[in-house]
Amino acid sequence: MMLQNDSFSQWMDIEIIKIVPGSCHLKTIIRNEMLNGFQTCHGGVTFSIADSALAFASNSHGIQAVSIETSISHFKPVSLGDIITAVAIEKNLSNRLGNYEVSLTNQHGELVALFKGTVFRNGKEWEI
Amino acid sequence: MMLQNDSFSQWMDIEIIKIVPGSCHLKTIIRNEMLNGFQTCHGGVTFSIADSALAFASNSHGIQAVSIETSISHFKPVSLGDIITAVAIEKNLSNRLGNYEVSLTNQHGELVALFKGTVFRNGKEWEI
Amino acid sequence: MMLQNDSFSQWMDIEIIKIVPGSCHLKTIIRNEMLNGFQTCHGGVTFSIADSALAFASNSHGIQAVSIETSISHFKPVSLGDIITAVAIEKNLSNRLGNYEVSLTNQHGELVALFKGTVFRNGKEWEI
Amino acid sequence: MMLQNDSFSQWMDIEIIKIVPGSCHLKTIIRNEMLNGFQTCHGGVTFSIADSALAFASNSHGIQAVSIETSISHFKPVSLGDIITAVAIEKNLSNRLGNYEVSLTNQHGELVALFKGTVFRNGKEWEI
Repeated sequence: MMLQNDSFSQWMDIEIIKIVPGSCHLKTIIRNEMLNGFQTCHGGVTFSIADSALAFASNSHGIQAVSIETSISHFKPVSLGDIITAVAIEKNLSNRLGNYEVSLTNQHGELVALFKGTVFRNGKEWEI
Repeated sequence: MMLQNDSFSQWMDIEIIKIVPGSCHLKTIIRNEMLNGFQTCHGGVTFSIADSALAFASNSHGIQAVSIETSISHFKPVSLGDIITAVAIEKNLSNRLGNYEVSLTNQHGELVALFKGTVFRNGKEWEI
Repeated sequence: MMLQNDSFSQWMDIEIIKIVPGSCHLKTIIRNEMLNGFQTCHGGVTFSIADSALAFASNSHGIQAVSIETSISHFKPVSLGDIITAVAIEKNLSNRLGNYEVSLTNQHGELVALFKGTVFRNGKEWEI
Repeated sequence: MMLQNDSFSQWMDIEIIKIVPGSCHLKTIIRNEMLNGFQTCHGGVTFSIADSALAFASNSHGIQAVSIETSISHFKPVSLGDIITAVAIEKNLSNRLGNYEVSLTNQHGELVALFKGTVFRNGKEWEI
């Protein structure tokens, strides 16, 4: 399984709740090593949680997909101890491209960030 | 200094080459824990290197700046052992907002990714 | 009303279906002058339809809001004669910022593009 | 030439200054029909000027390229009578994808907006 070989997702202690073709739910808890100079969760960690959800969701159709364009809007700070859940859903799929939206919520159900990603499907077979 | 209190930038072993108002050069080496399920550098780590450069460049004017919108385009895979240099430059600065572009190059001088970021300057004094 | 003074939205023949605080539905028909060198709807026109929906949705709270960051992902070509409907919904609202998603569908209900926008709320009173 | 068949670029009165493989300079003047409800240039028109520059720059290699992801950051308002120049430069080119940055400046040389675009190169021969 892709997570087993994904060292950085493991470092983030990502727990997969569900993967189905085109969609992925996962979560993790924010710990000390993930904080930035403002003592909130580093924007790159929040992004990475969403990016892992994108990777699993987009690679669930049997064809390898690599991220080409990704963006994130931060709405609320993420803090030490927060449980962040990422839900990736497919908005469009074509032969060569896929588009996904990933919502990031905290343990209070608040939307902390919204992530958008486009992947390129390179034609290689890939089993997630 | 902001890096001293930035746990995640320290985990990434970021080395600051230069910070001047509105600009930041930094670099790091990609190691094992940073890889993804394809055995290349996790997109979130590449993003985070740029995001740290954004944080230092945008917080160098004495006013606290927080990231609101960031995006990255990946051009070439980043591999184990690569030395990634990030250069953040200011494209626009207003009272409440700042815009930055961050170029990420590898040890061969190749552009591996391009990152764009908008920050909100919240008015609090902040010494980098 | 904002549309009455919006020359370009009028040139696009935009018809407002509904505006409520934080949300806007509008539509238009693609005509000849809107086409590009491939004889499909110019990407900037598709973008502009969404951008108008963003403007009306974000300016519906009584405070003037100006676009700072906007992006669009094109999924399917838009053709001469297509009826394009834009639905803008608010994803987050704070004192100084607002985030919106705009879905663009054609007369077959197909999602032709997805637009994302961040606005800066400058504090001036504004009646839509 | 692509501009000759591009109705919307003609409506915008776009004047091409230069096209070379991977790059395009063009300009236009902002007129009444291009204004929005704030009596400044509609964000979609500013975007469209850049999007046309993207189209010409990316289709200059002999292979048809269509826009998949585009974004714009607005820095200064654009007004009636402004002369807007767009310069598109290629940041990366691969077999299937191209990345471009487009700078938009006014007659005072001020950077009014920055646009980023990714195109998909679909393999069809295309003569600009």
